Amino acid sequence: MTAIDVIRDKRDGRALSDEAIEFIVRGGTDGSIPDYQLSAWLMAVRLNGMTDQETKTLTLAMAASGRQLDLSSIPGRKVDKHSTGGVGDKATLVVAPLVAAAGIPVAKLSGRALGHSGGTLDKLESIPGFNVDLSIDQFIDQVRRIGIAIAGQTSDMVPADKVFYALRDATATVDSVPLIASSVMSKKLAAGADAIVLDVKCGRGAFVATLDEAEALARALVAIGSKAGRETVAYVTDMEQPLGRAVGNALEVREAIETLSGHGPSDLEALSLRMGAEMLRMAAAPTTNLRQLLLDGSALRKFAQLIGAQSGDASVVDDLDRLPAATVQHPVLARESGQVAAVDALEIALAAKSLGAGRDRKDAAIDLSVGVVLHKKVGDRVQAGEALATAHARTEEAAAQITSRVAAAFSVAASAQPRRLLLSRVTAAGVERLDT
Amino acid sequence: MTAIDVIRDKRDGRALSDEAIEFIVRGGTDGSIPDYQLSAWLMAVRLNGMTDQETKTLTLAMAASGRQLDLSSIPGRKVDKHSTGGVGDKATLVVAPLVAAAGIPVAKLSGRALGHSGGTLDKLESIPGFNVDLSIDQFIDQVRRIGIAIAGQTSDMVPADKVFYALRDATATVDSVPLIASSVMSKKLAAGADAIVLDVKCGRGAFVATLDEAEALARALVAIGSKAGRETVAYVTDMEQPLGRAVGNALEVREAIETLSGHGPSDLEALSLRMGAEMLRMAAAPTTNLRQLLLDGSALRKFAQLIGAQSGDASVVDDLDRLPAATVQHPVLARESGQVAAVDALEIALAAKSLGAGRDRKDAAIDLSVGVVLHKKVGDRVQAGEALATAHARTEEAAAQITSRVAAAFSVAASAQPRRLLLSRVTAAGVERLDT
Repeated sequence: MTAIDVIRDKRDGRALSDEAIEFIVRGGTDGSIPDYQLSAWLMAVRLNGMTDQETKTLTLAMAASGRQLDLSSIPGRKVDKHSTGGVGDKATLVVAPLVAAAGIPVAKLSGRALGHSGGTLDKLESIPGFNVDLSIDQFIDQVRRIGIAIAGQTSDMVPADKVFYALRDATATVDSVPLIASSVMSKKLAAGADAIVLDVKCGRGAFVATLDEAEALARALVAIGSKAGRETVAYVTDMEQPLGRAVGNALEVREAIETLSGHGPSDLEALSLRMGAEMLRMAAAPTTNLRQLLLDGSALRKFAQLIGAQSGDASVVDDLDRLPAATVQHPVLARESGQVAAVDALEIALAAKSLGAGRDRKDAAIDLSVGVVLHKKVGDRVQAGEALATAHARTEEAAAQITSRVAAAFSVAASAQPRRLLLSRVTAAGVERLDT
Repeated sequence: MTAIDVIRDKRDGRALSDEAIEFIVRGGTDGSIPDYQLSAWLMAVRLNGMTDQETKTLTLAMAASGRQLDLSSIPGRKVDKHSTGGVGDKATLVVAPLVAAAGIPVAKLSGRALGHSGGTLDKLESIPGFNVDLSIDQFIDQVRRIGIAIAGQTSDMVPADKVFYALRDATATVDSVPLIASSVMSKKLAAGADAIVLDVKCGRGAFVATLDEAEALARALVAIGSKAGRETVAYVTDMEQPLGRAVGNALEVREAIETLSGHGPSDLEALSLRMGAEMLRMAAAPTTNLRQLLLDGSALRKFAQLIGAQSGDASVVDDLDRLPAATVQHPVLARESGQVAAVDALEIALAAKSLGAGRDRKDAAIDLSVGVVLHKKVGDRVQAGEALATAHARTEEAAAQITSRVAAAFSVAASAQPRRLLLSRVTAAGVERLDT
């Protein structure tokens, strides 16, 4: 078998054998297949697709390309949670301590996201002292000790994904369901959880825009997980407008802490409770009133315990002013009265990124303090002259530069309904459209 | 504009602007666009195609990527001839001296082909002393002096084609009409002729198998040439069975010399006369009885003059035994009687290659003496035990190893018709199916 044979088969629309896919992943990882052959193959996959069986094989081969975690020394059924990425999506910061407070072990590895704002690791690093670089032994030991750890994926995990992702980014082959699904799920499988709950974002602020596309991706992700023997459930959730109100790293941690205290935005709380309940079900844990854990402080205490265990300043949970804050707060005012009909998540994200909240290259620095906080969301009434949002910026000039962009992201109409947040629940059994 | 933008447009099936195509060719040539982006783009072109306008722009940009010949110092209208490549195709060795003998200037640059047997340059190098490495000044001066020169393309011509071709070969993107057409025509345009006659081979021994595919390629080639202001005519000719009888470098030179003496196989002679007549018409030369030039020795004398001018042993035209010859001649016998219904050109070519007549890598050495000579062609009667072909090999073992393959390439039936050779003539005005 040669790389040319495998490229030709996929070029001609044939389904590849397990051996052929494993050959490509192995050759991509060890460098024996050059980049130019991998990228021709990736383009052929992008244009001709993959069967469920091919996608599963690709995912397993990628997961096996590097270190795979063995979480068996942690008692109980481990459930992982992953979001495909959205604007203002700090749900992991709420869900992880919440379900840990309910007694199920949370061993969560994250990557550093590219894009409009940072990933979970960047957000956590806005807490003074927080260390995301744990050894695998430290990581597992911490979960055994306090029931929760959130750390960066180690560099020896899923090396095939790093090779493929860098090439996809440079060759317009990112938006392919089998390639996205294998990238997401290979990391989840290598991270060793017994079950996985996925949040597939859908809309302007996500990389899939329509419900049909999002459900197709969700089905692919669930199919891979199920075929690999891990119970997997995916929710398709709305990402037309940002999740919650805060967009920007420290601003999102602040909002996560408020939500863990029972005072968060209703959409973020609703999403977190639904994901948390699903994780408890998958862990076969006793039914728990998760909202009570927000109100009685146990979820917040678990978060403080996590921060302390990872060398962070746990007092931030009681004193939000210990988080880094931007020096300038600049309001963005409504020019007309009515009800908010849309808040374009992508435009808000790009505004936050232009303030310094996001990055295009993995090694670029980001400003953890800056971002945008929404005061109005879809369905809210607004008066002309009232603040729609606040820009948190380093300078007045930087804030002024994004004001009109943020304002233009809001559409105000005579009347508008709030958006539905939870759109579908996808399991191995099929797709269930949700009413909330 | 970035390479990713151009890849994405072609991935999504959009026609690229002239600027976008020129950007890719320039970046591929100067190395500013990395191989992995070029190969993703090539795969997108392979799968989504190109319009005639895109193909023309690609061709002109490739031709302009390096040195372009100026033949204006050679008097008269220069007509180039090119074959897309087939088994036993030594027609250039016949046509070039033939039309030069009729008084039209032949300034022919060739490449070194990969594949089953050598290219025109390899064949000429089987003549002792023949030098294909002329400087451009030497090349043009020789055409002015004796009316003919055949030399290797210089390394500074069409560098974009070298980059693309190496990648296409490694990424299963060779068989794309716009990529083949731009590769062929960029070299023809850079070589500076005023008009071009093309021989598009069709069948088992060519890289296009069907008449429809061959006509599509011929139309693309003619469209590019015409749009670039060079009169271009293409013939689609049969390549189900080898052309003539000899397959292998020195063996083919021998057959070319026999044909130039009026004693060649009828198919090779017919093809050469038709191509020659077309070239004379395109050169606006007086009507000439080309067959007479074979019979009266003028074509052969012109070939001898060419050999002499390029440091070769011109006495080979009178003494064929001065050509390198394989030590072993091993007959391949017919097992049944009847008429030959097919001689699989690809199988004959692979047999010749396994004797050492061809190469897979440009720098590989080939054995100029070895090959296969057919004694029977489609339509010929054969008796069981009669020789179908002779293997010319270095050793008895090598010959024995290909005997059954050569025998199996022949199909013998109760009755069979000779194959038609000249299938279509394609001009800017359209496709004309031929009866011969």
